[in-house]
Amino acid sequence: MKPIALDAMGGDYMPEASVEGARWAAAEGVPVILVGDKVRIEEEFDKRGSELPVAHASDVIEMDDHAADVRRRRDSSISVAMHLVRDGEASGCISMGHSGATMAAALLTLGRIKGVDRPAIFTSIPAGDHYVGLLDAGANADCRPRYLQQFAVMGSLYAQDVLGRERPTVGLLSIGEESHKGNELTREAHRLLMDTPGIAFYGNVEGRDLFAGTTDVVVTDGFTGNVALKLAEGEAKALFAWIREALNSSTVAKLGALLVRSALRRVAKRLDPAEYGAQPLLGVAGYAFIGHGSSSSRAVYSALKSARNTIESGVVATITNGLASLEDTTPIGPSPKGT
Amino acid sequence: MKPIALDAMGGDYMPEASVEGARWAAAEGVPVILVGDKVRIEEEFDKRGSELPVAHASDVIEMDDHAADVRRRRDSSISVAMHLVRDGEASGCISMGHSGATMAAALLTLGRIKGVDRPAIFTSIPAGDHYVGLLDAGANADCRPRYLQQFAVMGSLYAQDVLGRERPTVGLLSIGEESHKGNELTREAHRLLMDTPGIAFYGNVEGRDLFAGTTDVVVTDGFTGNVALKLAEGEAKALFAWIREALNSSTVAKLGALLVRSALRRVAKRLDPAEYGAQPLLGVAGYAFIGHGSSSSRAVYSALKSARNTIESGVVATITNGLASLEDTTPIGPSPKGT
Repeated sequence: MKPIALDAMGGDYMPEASVEGARWAAAEGVPVILVGDKVRIEEEFDKRGSELPVAHASDVIEMDDHAADVRRRRDSSISVAMHLVRDGEASGCISMGHSGATMAAALLTLGRIKGVDRPAIFTSIPAGDHYVGLLDAGANADCRPRYLQQFAVMGSLYAQDVLGRERPTVGLLSIGEESHKGNELTREAHRLLMDTPGIAFYGNVEGRDLFAGTTDVVVTDGFTGNVALKLAEGEAKALFAWIREALNSSTVAKLGALLVRSALRRVAKRLDPAEYGAQPLLGVAGYAFIGHGSSSSRAVYSALKSARNTIESGVVATITNGLASLEDTTPIGPSPKGT
Repeated sequence: MKPIALDAMGGDYMPEASVEGARWAAAEGVPVILVGDKVRIEEEFDKRGSELPVAHASDVIEMDDHAADVRRRRDSSISVAMHLVRDGEASGCISMGHSGATMAAALLTLGRIKGVDRPAIFTSIPAGDHYVGLLDAGANADCRPRYLQQFAVMGSLYAQDVLGRERPTVGLLSIGEESHKGNELTREAHRLLMDTPGIAFYGNVEGRDLFAGTTDVVVTDGFTGNVALKLAEGEAKALFAWIREALNSSTVAKLGALLVRSALRRVAKRLDPAEYGAQPLLGVAGYAFIGHGSSSSRAVYSALKSARNTIESGVVATITNGLASLEDTTPIGPSPKGT
């Protein structure tokens, strides 16, 4: 396969973490091309005595820039990386930088799959020994019911093709199991999902069902999804901080802590976003992935490995076909605004 | 003070848990009147060889009934309890049963405070050594920006009068710190909150700020708030289950577990909803509280104790005055629909 274009400049610990993470992934056979300031990247190579392909980009979209800036800043690392994908020189693109800008660049450069109103970020929530896919995790703050229907189809196909789930179940995130419970958006989306061919619609799920792993996929608007994702990460972080503090609170606890450390570390690892890999932007006509701004080398490595799996699955083609058949069966008509 | 009317029938473990919890609270000087099936409740008293005041109610709103049923089922325990408050025979009302029915009964019987469009559920999220107040936790799935403004005033006054915070800060739950980030509702609510007198508006907060305790109070619509609350509870439950499993996975871990047990239990307790007490319904012209359906005796006891503190604070009068001055300063005009 063509190399994966890694925006080496976007993110808190870049380019160090991208260079290091890319080296690890390349050592395991993942083809990578780093995109960014060639001089800075090569300094990192020199320190490590190794080298990988680089595409130069003189500019970087910073976290406080506007997402729309990608439109005119064609020399930014994310824009250059996305163009490599469009021109067939890269198989996909990953950025740990400004996620709004990454989405904007993906839409602008790669375009949308036919039948997709809005691409969505697919993220993973740990649930026991597997992960629940949650989308949209933040691309679209205001959604219409039919967007959620499209998310359901895309999420379901992703869970099937990439995560290997057979007939994945899809839940609609709401505030009560009964179909009439929720807000205007979910009540209308519930009706649409009931009539959506090709998905195993489970019905409404609640906040507690995410970690319980009630369904394979959960769909929601990007506002709720992003609040849920950041709350989940923040709670895990807070909880482990309290546990560390408690295990340090007495001599007996400290002694016990030595014995339980490796067991607790396994649990903490399950909750570490650096382990999940990158989040695919589903609905874009190509492979684009968004990583955490605070990604470490390990997160970059995981992201590259999971991106390779996703690209190899050919899920973009599956989603393209899936959305085409959705369009064929959905009655044409005005879609009521559900938010 | 007049006794607190406890709906003794609503909830999973009733009336056992209400009778037991009420006994503990009464032993600490909290005046209680139990409302429900007199025969069933007195059976529980007989088992325990103690007695408390009872108001008979022949009916119960069950979890699968409709909230609106309270309108005609005047003999239901929640309806009878709420009427005791209206008639001045009880100082407040708590129910662990159907929360929609409890809200409906409160609105129907006690009415709203002038200037409040929609009452909101105020809940507590543990953050380090204190709690962050979150509202609305589920009363209003679809909100307008001015509802959030009213929630901010009510939550702020509650944090001040009941929780003893000086000049409590109020955050607006969104998906980015910048004021332009969020959905239609939060963008408009942000503008309103900037101009709201009498509150210390912090600006936008994100999901991660809840457990970090960035602000004293967080306002959001009842859909997002309910998803957040149930996710937070579900994650804590899942995490402790994984930790228990990990601590049981090897002989070394099992040994260590004996030594760290009490330290971990303190952390778990911080996250246990049974410890928080009942959730006040702010904006109702009287004291009404909603508890967890799965409340144990301990949760009933905590709820009664926290309800007494709330009632003694006189916060309903403070909110009534606070909303009156908000109405005086807010320009009258059509409120754009924000969701």
